[in-house]
Amino acid sequence: MSFSILATDPTTSARRGRLVLPHGTVETPIFMPVGTQGTVKTLHPAELEQLGSQIILGNTYHLWLRPGHELIRELGGLHGFSTWRKPMLTDSGGFQVWSLAKLRKITEEGVRFQNHLDGSKMLLTPELSMEIQGALGSDIAMLFDECPPYPCDEAYAAKSLALTTRWAKRCKDWVTENEPRSGEGRQQHFGIVQGSIYADLREQSARELVELGFDGYAIGGVSVGEPEHEMFRAIENAVPFLPHDKPRYAMGLGTPPQILEMISRGVDMFDCVMPTRIARHGMAMTLDGPINIKNLIHAKDPRPLCESAHPHVAGFSRAYLRHLFRAGEILGLRLLSFHNLHFYLSLVAGAREAIAAGNFPAYKDSFIRRYTRTDTP
Amino acid sequence: MSFSILATDPTTSARRGRLVLPHGTVETPIFMPVGTQGTVKTLHPAELEQLGSQIILGNTYHLWLRPGHELIRELGGLHGFSTWRKPMLTDSGGFQVWSLAKLRKITEEGVRFQNHLDGSKMLLTPELSMEIQGALGSDIAMLFDECPPYPCDEAYAAKSLALTTRWAKRCKDWVTENEPRSGEGRQQHFGIVQGSIYADLREQSARELVELGFDGYAIGGVSVGEPEHEMFRAIENAVPFLPHDKPRYAMGLGTPPQILEMISRGVDMFDCVMPTRIARHGMAMTLDGPINIKNLIHAKDPRPLCESAHPHVAGFSRAYLRHLFRAGEILGLRLLSFHNLHFYLSLVAGAREAIAAGNFPAYKDSFIRRYTRTDTP
Ligand SMILES: [Zn+2]
Ligand SMILES: [Zn+2]
Repeated sequence: MSFSILATDPTTSARRGRLVLPHGTVETPIFMPVGTQGTVKTLHPAELEQLGSQIILGNTYHLWLRPGHELIRELGGLHGFSTWRKPMLTDSGGFQVWSLAKLRKITEEGVRFQNHLDGSKMLLTPELSMEIQGALGSDIAMLFDECPPYPCDEAYAAKSLALTTRWAKRCKDWVTENEPRSGEGRQQHFGIVQGSIYADLREQSARELVELGFDGYAIGGVSVGEPEHEMFRAIENAVPFLPHDKPRYAMGLGTPPQILEMISRGVDMFDCVMPTRIARHGMAMTLDGPINIKNLIHAKDPRPLCESAHPHVAGFSRAYLRHLFRAGEILGLRLLSFHNLHFYLSLVAGAREAIAAGNFPAYKDSFIRRYTRTDTP
Repeated sequence: MSFSILATDPTTSARRGRLVLPHGTVETPIFMPVGTQGTVKTLHPAELEQLGSQIILGNTYHLWLRPGHELIRELGGLHGFSTWRKPMLTDSGGFQVWSLAKLRKITEEGVRFQNHLDGSKMLLTPELSMEIQGALGSDIAMLFDECPPYPCDEAYAAKSLALTTRWAKRCKDWVTENEPRSGEGRQQHFGIVQGSIYADLREQSARELVELGFDGYAIGGVSVGEPEHEMFRAIENAVPFLPHDKPRYAMGLGTPPQILEMISRGVDMFDCVMPTRIARHGMAMTLDGPINIKNLIHAKDPRPLCESAHPHVAGFSRAYLRHLFRAGEILGLRLLSFHNLHFYLSLVAGAREAIAAGNFPAYKDSFIRRYTRTDTP
């Protein structure tokens, strides 16, 4: 792997980078569509290509439970299984155990829980998470961490962070002993900075992970219910202690304005289920902010969703899209999912161009001003 | 409109024809994917193009109730509304009133019923059906008929048929007075032969409709629960009394072998919701008969659905498709819907080639023999 910085913004911490991974090259800042169960919901891999997706995310917890990582390994890893040929990142499964499983119990060994599909008792450990992600064959594997809830007192956050560091060490040891690939085809491993809202803990977490040494660093424990200014502070408290020449990934966020704010704070990579999830509820992104296509106001509207809509969607009127949602037709879910991902991928493509052209702050401000105006039609 | 016969099979009644319609040319025999609510379920119009669909069907009853034919008229007809640019056929709404609405009451005037969406009382008449179909702007509009149930005694069938003929006359009168288009852009109108299982009634119905004179003729009241041999007899009892130089359409059927049997009996056009409906339940057509992709036997199967699968689907293993269905992922519904329509469209494309090449009986027999073998893997 190599990560190179092609340009930096003179007045913010925004960077324009390039990440070379086993399955291809990723231009950063980048947004990664989420393919929880080995498919980005409602979309065909060919549509992800049409969208210009450079890297997508897969969820270790879901794929481990169903269909199982051994089956996926036999069928060519997650790339062979899903037919997606470009880079892929897998999460560690920790966050999903946290948000979906029942009767979770954290021990030094790992997390015991009952899975959300059939209630059977399971144990996920740092070593097993790395083994599963190895079988999935993602380009980037995330270390197994504990993601503390919000709010969380400082004593718990400190204890949790220390556990995350010990688990990071165990992940690294497992990889050293078992990682079958090396060189260009080697799976990359990203550490996850925790520490909740506490600046000293974020610094400590970052320093400990950098000391261990990973291919990239994520900021975790954000977008877990905290106010937006705490989210920005968590990033600001971690970034100064991360190496300049490694990619930075803010996990699980956010709104389009939040993504631009994060880019200006030096973040390179993003993922979020929000654009596809809200699409399935009829919400579409536009340059003038989100709209609910089910609203009566769109009933006779011959206009497309947005002046920037992709040709795959731009031919359909708001009236037709509203009809599809009211009639419960799957094409509606598809078109809004496609549209919202196009919106996010265009947002980061615009950021890349703006950083390279030296006008990122103007791009960011003008996007946010229009997106958040409340007096628009 | 023009319909021309390009070739006829020397030993059966199969014909290879060409139908020129306002929105394009249709090569027959043809299968028409069903787009009940202005969308062929789960598919994008661009995928219908990829499939080589030449003509699709829209349902008058559904579109009249929601979003309403006046809205569709304002937005450019069903072509403009849905963005499908090729030929389209609309049914009359009669069959859907029959199968979906509540408290139906047939009078000379039309059918009174409570609609299935909100229970409100409505009246559909021959004139209104033609008006709605005119607003939808389909290439081919079907006359409003009564479709008697199966079984049905001869006295009722005779009374029903007489009503259908009187309604056909009213449809024709309405069109003569109101049809705004003429020449090449004129909407075509197909009569529907009824008469249940009674040979003399089928003959009478066909003769009365031909006497009135329409652009094509459908055989209705088939695939309503009768045994297969009655279905074939209904066709055999009607076809000899229909003009050789007009297209013939068998409504709402059937299995792949039934379609080939119908073609050999001189039918040119087909529609059926079955291929897309069963797809959404995990059933996929193969040359060796249908399979249920959810079965455990496919769990580790790296093979595609069928050796004849379209490239849009052929890259996916049965194991992956089974996973999509078990995980409730929409991509699974999409891929099987696409696949089954490809299967039907390939079936009729093969029939067209075989008729032109003079070997239709061999094509039909070898397809049916393989499709219905029970000792296949
Ligand atoms: Zn999110
Ligand atoms: Zn059918």
